[in-house]
Amino acid sequence: MDIKEEAIIKHEEWKGKIEIISKAELGDKHDLSVAYTPGVAAPCMKIHENSEYAYECTAIGNMVAVVSDGSAVLGLGNIGGLAGLPVMEGKAVLFKRFGGVNAFPIVLSTQDTDEIVRTVKAIAPSFGGINLEDISAPRCFEVEKRLKEELDIPVFHDDQHGTAICVLAALINAAKLVKKNISEMKVCLNGPGAAGNAIIKLLVGYGVKDVFAVDRTGIIYKGRERLDDAKRELAEITNKEGRRGGLAEAIKGTDVFVGVSAPGCVTADMIKSMNRDAIVMAMANPTPEIMPDEAKKAGARVVCTGRSDFANQVNNVLAFPGVFKGALSCRARAINENMKLAAAHAIASLVGDDLTEDYVIPSAFDDRVAETVAKAVREQAIKDGLNRI
Amino acid sequence: MDIKEEAIIKHEEWKGKIEIISKAELGDKHDLSVAYTPGVAAPCMKIHENSEYAYECTAIGNMVAVVSDGSAVLGLGNIGGLAGLPVMEGKAVLFKRFGGVNAFPIVLSTQDTDEIVRTVKAIAPSFGGINLEDISAPRCFEVEKRLKEELDIPVFHDDQHGTAICVLAALINAAKLVKKNISEMKVCLNGPGAAGNAIIKLLVGYGVKDVFAVDRTGIIYKGRERLDDAKRELAEITNKEGRRGGLAEAIKGTDVFVGVSAPGCVTADMIKSMNRDAIVMAMANPTPEIMPDEAKKAGARVVCTGRSDFANQVNNVLAFPGVFKGALSCRARAINENMKLAAAHAIASLVGDDLTEDYVIPSAFDDRVAETVAKAVREQAIKDGLNRI
Repeated sequence: MDIKEEAIIKHEEWKGKIEIISKAELGDKHDLSVAYTPGVAAPCMKIHENSEYAYECTAIGNMVAVVSDGSAVLGLGNIGGLAGLPVMEGKAVLFKRFGGVNAFPIVLSTQDTDEIVRTVKAIAPSFGGINLEDISAPRCFEVEKRLKEELDIPVFHDDQHGTAICVLAALINAAKLVKKNISEMKVCLNGPGAAGNAIIKLLVGYGVKDVFAVDRTGIIYKGRERLDDAKRELAEITNKEGRRGGLAEAIKGTDVFVGVSAPGCVTADMIKSMNRDAIVMAMANPTPEIMPDEAKKAGARVVCTGRSDFANQVNNVLAFPGVFKGALSCRARAINENMKLAAAHAIASLVGDDLTEDYVIPSAFDDRVAETVAKAVREQAIKDGLNRI
Repeated sequence: MDIKEEAIIKHEEWKGKIEIISKAELGDKHDLSVAYTPGVAAPCMKIHENSEYAYECTAIGNMVAVVSDGSAVLGLGNIGGLAGLPVMEGKAVLFKRFGGVNAFPIVLSTQDTDEIVRTVKAIAPSFGGINLEDISAPRCFEVEKRLKEELDIPVFHDDQHGTAICVLAALINAAKLVKKNISEMKVCLNGPGAAGNAIIKLLVGYGVKDVFAVDRTGIIYKGRERLDDAKRELAEITNKEGRRGGLAEAIKGTDVFVGVSAPGCVTADMIKSMNRDAIVMAMANPTPEIMPDEAKKAGARVVCTGRSDFANQVNNVLAFPGVFKGALSCRARAINENMKLAAAHAIASLVGDDLTEDYVIPSAFDDRVAETVAKAVREQAIKDGLNRI
């Protein structure tokens, strides 16, 4: 059966992939009087005296909101919050399955930046963390920035940072394999949207030599026309060489290609123009920027995609469950750059001595991942003084 | 052990009374591709074409938000949304335990009417119904009115309507017992706040002869000073006799006392001043307006309270799980007055021939209740053309 047909059948059978269950047994009147009135007044009053106590007696300490306005759902575009709900429920079940974290999907009827920020702030007491999802760029940058400023709990736009963490994890191992130093690597990134933006910032923060970012207009450079705020910021930290041109000019002589862009936009000749032992991360979904076999034939040494049916799948599920698990475990006030770097290193470390061209990043079903990421993220949060316990 | 101590211990053990679980098995890559990308795109696109399809393939068809600003939590007053969370989680587990309905607590950081309305509208696509909870009067009236106007799903302030439904259910049976016709009954209601207001409207709609509503200032009458909008509306539909005075003047010569007010405010003499076979519903919690034995000694025939350790407990859990279950089952656009009346009759009907002074309303643990209420509410919704399926 076709995967879409099967998905329809299963979704209609599930009628919702999530379910709310009770941890409190309610067998008789006494049980009711403990879980509900009059007993419940006691924890309420203790929270009223000290808001931190809410973490001791409610679900918020392990509860994340998966918030979306449906403006950039998967590759489907702006289909709206309600139509994005199956994805957000999917995200919620991944949180539970891989990280043991409870997550609840909140899809919005608004796509206005101010309204999104106001709404998330208004419902924030119900959650221990906010996972933003499938919100289009550049709106997602402002939404995340303002929420991070105004809330004292982790706010994390997974399309940006989850992807960036996994890309860095794969790159750390791929660099080791091809015996190159990341600080001497040049990177070409095609598609500086939500994910691309975060990848560039994380790689620059990690110390790559230079990045050339390419959007529909061509290579981004300082002073180029039609740059929005986010791209103007990228122009400041990329393209030290001052390159001009399109993808072909950007990719030439680089060590790494990162695509979060469009199917089939990279040719064999482009790969051939890269440095020796090229690393290609072609993550357009479902069809990559270039197919792995073609990229290899053209000289690429390591190829990663977003697909589970090829080797080296760059899959956010390696990052977000453990990142939130770790942040929640110490009640971190935020998820900072160091914590993302720690997550990337933790993911990369699991490959260890098994490193090959076809194994630079662990499988989504490697059950060591979330725990290892959580531990690293937690330790980094404590090191940076972001923990509340 | 003291109930409060036990509640603290259990709440710290639970660390949240609710948990989110997955109905989708995620054992391998194939499972992931069905529940998440790429398969999930198929139900998303079907919702994008027809929003009603969301009920077929997501959890919203059986998912209620329990929304509170924490401004009137139990008898604890304005303790804020976060401090009210243990109550809202409690409500969520009651929804599941008694009605099989999934419910998720949303506690707000705002108590501004416009903000509450805006927030609930913004997150509404995530839910099939909205249960408002513990929002203080008169703000709760405007919040509910505006949300009912602007949303096409059931919006129900349980403190108001759940209580009113249960009071009417008990009254229907008590009237039968004392062989009085409800249309000839006079009612004294003390405490016309959220619950009191809804009780009065439901009883007046049901056809009681007259109601005397008493607030801190005394009996409400047309033209009285210091009446807010809600009470001005009550003045129009109550007190046909034009009574003046306080509680003693209001209760005299009535057949029914309904208290949603303060402990111990009703004296034996007041009960003695009522008509023969008086029906007393003293629902202040945990200490009633008058204790049952005292009321009986003064001549009351039937006494109901809000407490589980006395006979005739008026407990909202008899109403809200079945009301939502029924409304959701036919995707009702709203919960109207007829549906509330149907719920009251359904609850009352379960007592049947077992009717005695000490059994005018079924037990919360009578497992016929939710299903019977749901059926009645569903049928009424269909009769009134409010159903979408």
